[in-house]
Amino acid sequence: MGILEETISLIRPPDPRIMEKAQARLDDLTKPRGSLGRLEELAKQIAGITGSLKPPLDRKAVLVMAGDHGVAQEGVSAYPREVTMQMVLNFLAGGAAINVLARHIGAEVYVADMGVAAGFDPHPGLIDRKVAPGTASMTAGPAMDRKQAAASIEGGIDAAGLLIDKGFNIIGAGDMGIGNTTASSAITSVICGADASMVTGLGTGIQAPVLEKKIKTIEKAISINNPDPGDAIDVLSKVGGFEIGGIAGAILCCAARSIPVVIDGFISAAGALIANAVEPGSSAYMIPSHCSAERGHSIALAHLGLKPLFDLDMRLGEGTGAAIGISIAEAAVKIMDEMATFSSAGISGKEG
Amino acid sequence: MGILEETISLIRPPDPRIMEKAQARLDDLTKPRGSLGRLEELAKQIAGITGSLKPPLDRKAVLVMAGDHGVAQEGVSAYPREVTMQMVLNFLAGGAAINVLARHIGAEVYVADMGVAAGFDPHPGLIDRKVAPGTASMTAGPAMDRKQAAASIEGGIDAAGLLIDKGFNIIGAGDMGIGNTTASSAITSVICGADASMVTGLGTGIQAPVLEKKIKTIEKAISINNPDPGDAIDVLSKVGGFEIGGIAGAILCCAARSIPVVIDGFISAAGALIANAVEPGSSAYMIPSHCSAERGHSIALAHLGLKPLFDLDMRLGEGTGAAIGISIAEAAVKIMDEMATFSSAGISGKEG
Repeated sequence: MGILEETISLIRPPDPRIMEKAQARLDDLTKPRGSLGRLEELAKQIAGITGSLKPPLDRKAVLVMAGDHGVAQEGVSAYPREVTMQMVLNFLAGGAAINVLARHIGAEVYVADMGVAAGFDPHPGLIDRKVAPGTASMTAGPAMDRKQAAASIEGGIDAAGLLIDKGFNIIGAGDMGIGNTTASSAITSVICGADASMVTGLGTGIQAPVLEKKIKTIEKAISINNPDPGDAIDVLSKVGGFEIGGIAGAILCCAARSIPVVIDGFISAAGALIANAVEPGSSAYMIPSHCSAERGHSIALAHLGLKPLFDLDMRLGEGTGAAIGISIAEAAVKIMDEMATFSSAGISGKEG
Repeated sequence: MGILEETISLIRPPDPRIMEKAQARLDDLTKPRGSLGRLEELAKQIAGITGSLKPPLDRKAVLVMAGDHGVAQEGVSAYPREVTMQMVLNFLAGGAAINVLARHIGAEVYVADMGVAAGFDPHPGLIDRKVAPGTASMTAGPAMDRKQAAASIEGGIDAAGLLIDKGFNIIGAGDMGIGNTTASSAITSVICGADASMVTGLGTGIQAPVLEKKIKTIEKAISINNPDPGDAIDVLSKVGGFEIGGIAGAILCCAARSIPVVIDGFISAAGALIANAVEPGSSAYMIPSHCSAERGHSIALAHLGLKPLFDLDMRLGEGTGAAIGISIAEAAVKIMDEMATFSSAGISGKEG
């Protein structure tokens, strides 16, 4: 059994008995029942995921999956391809938005090189799982071959497993890859059965004429490659990216090892679509964070059954939304663990 | 000049030059322009409020204003009146939801007794500004007299001033008071010119027949007292609450002293409506947090020109939404302060 099959075989539904106990505990806390809304839902979900009423979320990591895209050469992005490599160095130096937000919430940032078109010196924050130095352009054939697609997912399983082995108990999924909103739109279009024009947005900030070109590029890639919506590996290989496969793998690994995984923006959601298509049971382990300004994001989240926790008009990726989501998830479990109960605090109950 | 007039006289608009500089700084950071959405808006607003590009938000407080309501005896709430007093003790003992969330974000909780119908032993976390032990029922005349209304606002100015003197540099406004969604709905109805039925919700969890009674109670109170929408003190005295006046005062104090103040749920928004009616310039100092499940909240926020940052279906009050909002505001200023610039990190700019 390969690492992917083994991981899938380990994924079980969250524990319903613990979730029931979590609900009872939440209902006994000094607040009107349900009055903390989605914080209570999150606490219950994380209790089920971890099998604990005191889920430890003290070791937090954001795992930024990085990769380059052949399609970036087609003029679909506002930034040149070398920015992927430059931003990886920025992550490792601690100067990017995700570094700031991770420090703010007490999380560590790790970068997995899933397929950046450049080499890096070893760094304690860098996990090398490079499948290849960038994908091929999806407009001229598959972005990668089937073996590479599986390897990117397995690399993601590996990378997340490494963090879990280090003791991290909640992981946020982030991304970096110039051109990767194009790949994510293509994946969302195929898996959700939505027209490319419905799931394609402005990415890092392209203008209207470029958007039109981007949509046409995606339509062409789908038409040439004819990805099979029922075969996640096929979709990933035809129109995906190495970092998107990495995100899918990280999610599957978290699901297999009973670790909550926080989904970031549109690219993470595309990775989540792949993970969910590989093993639908994985979606129960996904914690949503924000709904980004990127058009296809809400369609992808709806397909996954995930209702975003907030919408701050963010469209940066990197795991920036996931970082805030991790902090909200941590708040939720602390509510369950630390609040007084009606009886312990001597508070009168509801009347009548 | 009284303390209220003096406070109002000190309120100036946020500094537009610093806000311009903040925008330039945000545009130079290693991310596509505007890609952190509302975090960037918040950073700019807080720069303007504090007059600094490195606003210190390291000393965080949630100020929970507590008071009792005569109208609670009319059967409009799911909980008996003594819960206000019991919850104040719970806040001081650290067992309530706001204590957990404040600890999570590194904030301290202070409770101001603005008018609880019970006495308390002195406690370092308790600020005694009791105007009277609970309001009168607004269905039989004004909830308080005009002097008491002004005193509640001045007590709030005092309480917030005390925290600012202690060195706190961001304050979240919270509330506790059985019956106070009824008062808040009445205030919102009068100030926003909306029917009581449009701004009245389920509070801590009443059932449909009680909701009908609650709406009728509010209609009766407004009809009997005929509050003048153009006179905030009149509205507060006729249908308000001591803790709502306290919140209004705290907001005015923060505005006068260039401190960002984070608005919590519906009751805080009602206090903000009063503050805004007293001095419209105060609204520039308000940081929104969530939109609660309470019906009138979105109407009040729209009237104030505040767009909520998140919606987690919360309806607890206490400052629980404000606590999460404080953490987001802090994240926003850290982004502005700590991120690398394109030139410092050697990142290529946008193409074309």
